[in-house]
Order: sequence, then structure tokens, then C-alpha cells
Amino acid sequence: MTDRGTRPPVAAEPLTGSTGAGDRSAPAAAPTSTEATYPTEIQAEVDLFLAGLAFASEGTTRGLEEAMRYSLLAGGKRIRPVLSLATAEALGRDPQELLPLAGAIELVHTYSLIHDDLPAMDDDDLRRGRPTCHVAYGEDVAILAGDGLFAEALRLVLERQDGRPEHLLACVRELVAAAGVNGMVGGQYLDVTASADLDAAGVRRLQELKTGRLICASVDCVGLVSGLSGPDTMALSRFATELGTLFQIVDDILDVTGDEVSLGKRLRSDERHGKPTYVTTFGLERSGDLAEKHHRRARAALAEAGERTGTLEQIADYILTRRR
Amino acid sequence: MTDRGTRPPVAAEPLTGSTGAGDRSAPAAAPTSTEATYPTEIQAEVDLFLAGLAFASEGTTRGLEEAMRYSLLAGGKRIRPVLSLATAEALGRDPQELLPLAGAIELVHTYSLIHDDLPAMDDDDLRRGRPTCHVAYGEDVAILAGDGLFAEALRLVLERQDGRPEHLLACVRELVAAAGVNGMVGGQYLDVTASADLDAAGVRRLQELKTGRLICASVDCVGLVSGLSGPDTMALSRFATELGTLFQIVDDILDVTGDEVSLGKRLRSDERHGKPTYVTTFGLERSGDLAEKHHRRARAALAEAGERTGTLEQIADYILTRRR
Repeated sequence: MTDRGTRPPVAAEPLTGSTGAGDRSAPAAAPTSTEATYPTEIQAEVDLFLAGLAFASEGTTRGLEEAMRYSLLAGGKRIRPVLSLATAEALGRDPQELLPLAGAIELVHTYSLIHDDLPAMDDDDLRRGRPTCHVAYGEDVAILAGDGLFAEALRLVLERQDGRPEHLLACVRELVAAAGVNGMVGGQYLDVTASADLDAAGVRRLQELKTGRLICASVDCVGLVSGLSGPDTMALSRFATELGTLFQIVDDILDVTGDEVSLGKRLRSDERHGKPTYVTTFGLERSGDLAEKHHRRARAALAEAGERTGTLEQIADYILTRRR
Repeated sequence: MTDRGTRPPVAAEPLTGSTGAGDRSAPAAAPTSTEATYPTEIQAEVDLFLAGLAFASEGTTRGLEEAMRYSLLAGGKRIRPVLSLATAEALGRDPQELLPLAGAIELVHTYSLIHDDLPAMDDDDLRRGRPTCHVAYGEDVAILAGDGLFAEALRLVLERQDGRPEHLLACVRELVAAAGVNGMVGGQYLDVTASADLDAAGVRRLQELKTGRLICASVDCVGLVSGLSGPDTMALSRFATELGTLFQIVDDILDVTGDEVSLGKRLRSDERHGKPTYVTTFGLERSGDLAEKHHRRARAALAEAGERTGTLEQIADYILTRRR
């Protein structure tokens, strides 16, 4: 893998008059970089694994399983599980062995999307190009589908992931911490309660909790279940932190400059809800610069993480340059 | 502890004309039995433990913690954690050692109540005598408070419950299975989708999943985390199954015959939603008889479960005779 010297999608040319929140509606510069290649063969393995999952042991709850699988199998880039499998590769493990953990992380992510899209939350009707879970199955079933996915994610790790008991425990401990009040759910809370004038540090923290923690867990949990921590995985952890920030900055940029068909979701959702983002806080141009900075740092961390980081480099490049 | 020969609250005198679903509005017979003593000293220990729990590690998410604690500390009989501590006693363990697990089970129960009460679900505005979580904090925060309680419940067991790693894993595996699609969430799904003409077997199954599984887990998880299973805990498991059924039958009876002030929640919620219950299916009189039958079976199972089952007997008697 080489660093293609790519630029983030919107900052190919400096935008003038970018002064922070005020340039929200500035037209995005036409992207000149090409999207880096995504490890689609790993994504396909994840998709295959997820498609094979069943949750209901009896016919009466098959309808709940259907709603869960509807959202779970709606496609998507599978960045988190792909990251887990690429981390396994970086640690010299067979990625196949980590599929239950990787799949579980995608279940947790899907659960958060379903709840995030609910009328009482972001009230989105389109996700991954399809009607959201509550539009398709009703709000009550959607709430339960999210709840069910979280429980079944943990069952998946606890019942199917190989690992020594103490390592499995450490891994699940990290996963639930990343999903809890000091992680994803806390970030969602900050998101629903945030006022538009949240300062830069506040925006960063919101995103660190809401998306960053689970992205970090996608890397860290693989180390933990392999019995590795501390110096052995420190560079990978730093990589994951940078990647999480990079991911969210690009997400915020695409929410303004992307197109709904490619992204498969309604755009300007944050704007509609008056929510602070990297773009409202730093402006499009500085957000692009920030994305590049975090990409550089992510790559620098990988350079210290051993010889087998090719796929992780590919993921970092893709996230910087992705259009959807 | 002695079996007081108590009767369930509503069936002290035979009701005439009880013919199944048709007698829904039959006036309840005045209860003649007295409520058995509840182990309030154990309940107080649970309350103290729960009151000491904090979830947010930073100020910004304190508001979410507040909503979680609002519902968690609203009182209630704490039947599930009290059951866990009484099971510890029955197994010859110091109940204090099981407080993290017992507390976690109450967190899971509270999470299910918050989501159950949501407008899209049962749409209840009163719980444990106070406005429900979404009435007090808004629907978005209530959804997240439920989500957060589930994650923090698991963190509590994984970070604070003592036990050998393989025993802790078995315990958490059972807890998430009890909360998942083949347990509580599956039961909630059956509840929101059930039609009023569900047959008797269907009503039983709904309740087994919705409330029975977590009540069983309150007992079984204590055995698992103690490294006990199979013959050592079989009688206790049978007890828990019978107790779960008994609990739900009495709950359905009280939903018709109880009073809102004592119960702290809106009554006839099932009726309003056209939901099948033991009372709509079997009628009040037969429901009372069924409650007695399952109480007898619960006590019989305890008789085979060793010498230290006094508190568990007390709980069984209380559940049969409770007024709230």
C-alpha cells in the first residue's frame, strides 16, 4: 500500500471566505482526488458472515429477526468489522477467526443507527438507500430491533468468538464500555442535547464518544481478545483514534457536499436539526485540512505498527477520499 | 419460613360466570389473605447499592446519568436482585459478594421498563408512582437512558463482579441471552404484535420470554458465576421458572383488581391495548387457581434445594399475596 497523496473530497482548492460556521452553505469545490480502493474482498467476507446470522429460535419472534436483518443487511461499507479483520491481519492472526467479534461490532453499529433514525431522535426516513427500520416496520418494532441487536451482538461474541476466557472478558468489557454512557450512547446524548453553538472542543468530544469509541473498539477489541495490550498494540490504538476523528470529519463534510443517492441517506440532517459539526465549527476548508492532518497521523501511527498494516493503510486512504 | 397457606389476592371467593376472556370486567373479589412479609432488609441493601452507582465519567453526560438514575431509583420491590441475593444465600454464599450482578439485573429490568413505557410502545405516563422517563426527560433521552442502562448493566458485571473468568463469562452469556431475542426483547416483540385472541399457549410463551427469562436469570446467573450448574442448581432453576410464571399471573390479576396508587402505575394498560393476558385468557378465578398451582410448585422445588432457602420461600409467598 502506498500513500496516494490524496486530498479530502472537498478541499482540493482552497475555499475563500471560509470563516467557520458562516460558510456552511459555501459551494464545495469539485473533488479532484480519486477515491482510494476499499478492501472489498474483506467487506464481502463480512457481508457473507452477517447474512448467515439468525437470532430467533422460534417462529413467533421471526418478525423481530426480520426487522433486525433488514437493517443489518442493508449494505454499507462495514468499516468497523473490516477494520477489525484488518487489525487481525496486522497482528499476524487469521482474520477468519475474528469474524464473530467483527460481526458483533457491526450489530452494535446497526443498533445505534436504528435508534438514531427514530422519530424522537434524528427522524430520518432513509438509510443505506432504503426506508429506515421504523418506516418499514413501525416505531415499536424498530426500538426492539435495536435493543435486540445489542443483546445479540454480545451473545455472538460470548458464544462464538474463540479466545481465552480472561481475554474474551477484556474484549467484551471494552465493547460494552465503548457502547455505554462514556461511549456511543453518551455521544448520542450529547448529539440530541447539543446546542448549535457548542465550541470546537465540545464538537470533538461529542464525535469521539458518538463514533470514535466504537471505531477504536473495532481495533482495540481484536488486540484484547488476542491477549495483547500495552506496548504491543499502542500504535494500533493511536491509529484507531486518528481514524475515528478522520472518519467523522469526512462524514460531516459529505453531509454538506455529498449526494443522497451515493450516500443512501438524507443529507444536511445535522443542519436541519441545528446540530454542531466539524463543518459548522471549522468551516469546509479547515475541515478538509483537519481531515488531512488526522490522515497523516493515522498513517504515521501505522508506520510504527509493524509490517502487516497494508489493509489498514488502504482503509485510512479510503476514508480520507471516500465519496459515500 | 412457613407456607402460610395464602391465597392469591383475587381468588379468595370463587367468582361466578368466569368464562375466560369474557369476564375481563368482572368485579374482583375482596382479598381476604394478608400480604406475606417481604425481605425488606435485602431490598434496602439493593437500594443502597443502586443509589451508589454513577455512570458518567464527565460532566457533559451527567444529564443522561440523571435520567437513568431517575428511573433506576424510583423505588420498586427489587424482586429480581433480591432474588439473586436470596439465591446466593441458598447456595451458601455471602449475598454481599453478588451485589454487582444483582444490581446489573435491576438495571436491565429498568431499561426494559423505560422502553416499554415509550409512546410507541405501551405509552404509559406513570411508573412506580412517578412520571415515566420520557415524560420527565423527553422521548429521545428516555430511549438513550434505556440503551445506556443495558450497556452499564453489563459493565457493572464485567468490571465489578468477582468470579473466575470462565464463570463470569457463563454468567454474562446467560444474562444477555435472557435479555435478547429469545428472551426479554423477544417477549416485548410478542407483546407489541400480539392480537387479543392469542391462545393460552401463546400467552404463556409471551410471558415466559418477556418476564420469565430475566427472573430465571436472576437465579441461574448466581449459580453460573459461582461455578455451579447442572444437578447443583436444577431445583433452584425449576423454582425460578415457576416463580416467573407466578409473578406474571399475579401481575395480570393486579392489573385488573389492583389500585393505581399502591401499584404506582396505570392499570388496565393491557386492556387499553387489547393485549392478551392470563386474565383475559383464563378468567380471574382460574388465574387465581393457576397462581396457587405455580406457587405450590415453586415451594416444592425449593424443598429440594437445600436448607438455606428461607428467603426464597418468603419471596414466593410474597409474590403470591402481594397487593402491589
